[in-house]
Amino acid sequence: MIQLSIDSEAIQADLDAIAACSDSPPPGVTRVVYGAADQRARAYLRGRCAQAGLALREDALGNLFARWEGAEPGLPAVASGSHIDAIPASGRFDGTVGVVGALEAIRALQRTGHAPRRAIELLLFTSEEPTRFGVGCLGSRALCGTLDPDSLRALQDAEGRSLDELRAAAGFVGPLEGVALAPGHYAAFVELHIEQGPLLETEQLPIGVVRAIAAPAALRLRLHGEGGHAGAVLMLGRRDALLAGAEVALAVERAALTSGSPDTVATTGRFVVLPGAVNAIPSAATLEIDVRDVAAEPRDRALALIDAAVEEICGRRHVTYELQRLNADPPAASDPAVVAAIITACVGLGMGYQVMVSRAYHDSLFMARLAPTAMIFIPCRGGVSHRADEYVEPEQICQGVAVLASTLEQLSS
Amino acid sequence: MIQLSIDSEAIQADLDAIAACSDSPPPGVTRVVYGAADQRARAYLRGRCAQAGLALREDALGNLFARWEGAEPGLPAVASGSHIDAIPASGRFDGTVGVVGALEAIRALQRTGHAPRRAIELLLFTSEEPTRFGVGCLGSRALCGTLDPDSLRALQDAEGRSLDELRAAAGFVGPLEGVALAPGHYAAFVELHIEQGPLLETEQLPIGVVRAIAAPAALRLRLHGEGGHAGAVLMLGRRDALLAGAEVALAVERAALTSGSPDTVATTGRFVVLPGAVNAIPSAATLEIDVRDVAAEPRDRALALIDAAVEEICGRRHVTYELQRLNADPPAASDPAVVAAIITACVGLGMGYQVMVSRAYHDSLFMARLAPTAMIFIPCRGGVSHRADEYVEPEQICQGVAVLASTLEQLSS
Repeated sequence: MIQLSIDSEAIQADLDAIAACSDSPPPGVTRVVYGAADQRARAYLRGRCAQAGLALREDALGNLFARWEGAEPGLPAVASGSHIDAIPASGRFDGTVGVVGALEAIRALQRTGHAPRRAIELLLFTSEEPTRFGVGCLGSRALCGTLDPDSLRALQDAEGRSLDELRAAAGFVGPLEGVALAPGHYAAFVELHIEQGPLLETEQLPIGVVRAIAAPAALRLRLHGEGGHAGAVLMLGRRDALLAGAEVALAVERAALTSGSPDTVATTGRFVVLPGAVNAIPSAATLEIDVRDVAAEPRDRALALIDAAVEEICGRRHVTYELQRLNADPPAASDPAVVAAIITACVGLGMGYQVMVSRAYHDSLFMARLAPTAMIFIPCRGGVSHRADEYVEPEQICQGVAVLASTLEQLSS
Repeated sequence: MIQLSIDSEAIQADLDAIAACSDSPPPGVTRVVYGAADQRARAYLRGRCAQAGLALREDALGNLFARWEGAEPGLPAVASGSHIDAIPASGRFDGTVGVVGALEAIRALQRTGHAPRRAIELLLFTSEEPTRFGVGCLGSRALCGTLDPDSLRALQDAEGRSLDELRAAAGFVGPLEGVALAPGHYAAFVELHIEQGPLLETEQLPIGVVRAIAAPAALRLRLHGEGGHAGAVLMLGRRDALLAGAEVALAVERAALTSGSPDTVATTGRFVVLPGAVNAIPSAATLEIDVRDVAAEPRDRALALIDAAVEEICGRRHVTYELQRLNADPPAASDPAVVAAIITACVGLGMGYQVMVSRAYHDSLFMARLAPTAMIFIPCRGGVSHRADEYVEPEQICQGVAVLASTLEQLSS
């Protein structure tokens, strides 16, 4: 096995530089895709990839491919990467660690004198977070062909600006028809990511080897009741949209608890009420609901429970509704050969690991449709993510990068 | 009795001109105090008052006084008026009818050749709606001394701008110490207003004579839970601020239904969730709650039920909270002599009326501490208010203005 040395200072410098690109003031980080901070972070990464001698390509969506050519350029490459967009006021590690980490893994392999037979490509996926367009994993969905060009063109942000307009303003032009890659394009894909859960910390293990990624579903519920003066309209006969929404949010929690699987989670993450004045009966409410499980059946059972609850609650409260299923992707299983390569790397480096599932979803969920895929998890403090106080020790990042580098070395040889 | 002729076209022209001053596009009207639309509407009204020959004065808060001098200037004046600020996307009649109506009542009395012994003053109250500063009836509270200058200076809007800064930007300067009026300053106060409830329409009566105004209370509840990734954190052990808020909103409804009075109403009108992303567990929520009854006891019983529910729910869900009582004003009774003058006017004009209570609260609640006060209600379609489709027939407004004019004629003679 090769002797790896991981440059922790370089990783921290990259993390600092990207965290400084934020649409909101510190300590939280906000990077909305195609926004000013996203553009600054991308420019920084292009420079760092060029310094490492990688050949750069960007597709019409802004997915970035930085290639370290192999001895046999005709062979499908081995790829690694993640995303750098960040939900409002969140942390600096989610996604970014997998981009910065893959870059350092490549630099570390270069320092060992490793001469890859297959090319190694660093991937930066556009818009893993659903913040702007309401769809998560935009870039990787497009790469694997799940989101076709017509569906992409139909996307808008909350201000009504189209994806086409926004990508052009960010400098990403050209036909969306060229974005999807053919199956077999990559020999393998490996994503390094923080766990976003407490398991590895609890077990005091540095590495998680992901064998499956949870099946997420997202719902949008619009409720239409009847407004009025909060003082003048008596209680009986009210059609309060907020109260219907409150009952639905509690039913969403109950659906997760009674799906039959302890792994089911269901969350009402958005709840917007109109008109939103203390002395006005709420006439309308919009809820956004996230439901997941590592198995599709209990998740779909929870979805059915939510459907039934919405119908019952809105019927009883005389509130009309539209319930929209934004997505309900199938779960993904990791590729056994890639999982084996990660485990070999852990054993070779003397690092403890645990085979586990990912409850959060990732670009790997879609890359698995295109290439043999697996993920490497590292712990994060308290399992906390999507918050400003997300934290990972520098040493824990180095351990993950070492496992990633060793895995890429095996898969590219 | 004098022969009154009410100019319906003038009233409608005034209503149209003020409705055109809006911070939001039609059909809804939004006029936030000290905002651009509020400023334009005030400028229009100043012009109309000047055309009617009234002497103008504005105090440091922007309360406007337009005076038709009487034959005996030393006597306390008779006053009438209301507010023109409007909650987001609401209607064009709430408040504004009482300002435009008082102006037309004065013009109509001028046309009859009435020479008032006491002056008649038109009052425009600053910020009856709590939209900007979280406190309703700002202007009339200050006039009667319930809100002292120090409390006024402590007020801020949601963006953290102080009342002092905002009033100065709107052109209202000078010490707040001069705003409060001495008891006895006015001989009487009469407010014309839409009912904002269905009673007059149901009874097919043109006029309501208000004998009491409901006792409103407003609460602000801030909930602090724990955020996290919606996919990665299992259900048990979550401290979801939105779910605690949902339970509280339902408890607020239950408190109104079990207060022991069929008149108690309780509404959660605002519900703001952070961070507000579909894939993030809500870490914080802010609710604003409105509780009213025409009697203080059942209202206070409902408040106690809400207090107990918040404590129980937040304790069980391990969510910390601050529950702030923004106000809990006592109810007001109308002055028998002013009520008698309104009834005399109805009888003289041959109009049907009903003596009733006001469930909505009004500047009259505070003017009643300063002067003998009563209100004149006119019907509104379906009892609908605080909505874009609020509507009153022009003829119904004329009937209310005629009763107001006749009442002012009696009280000023």
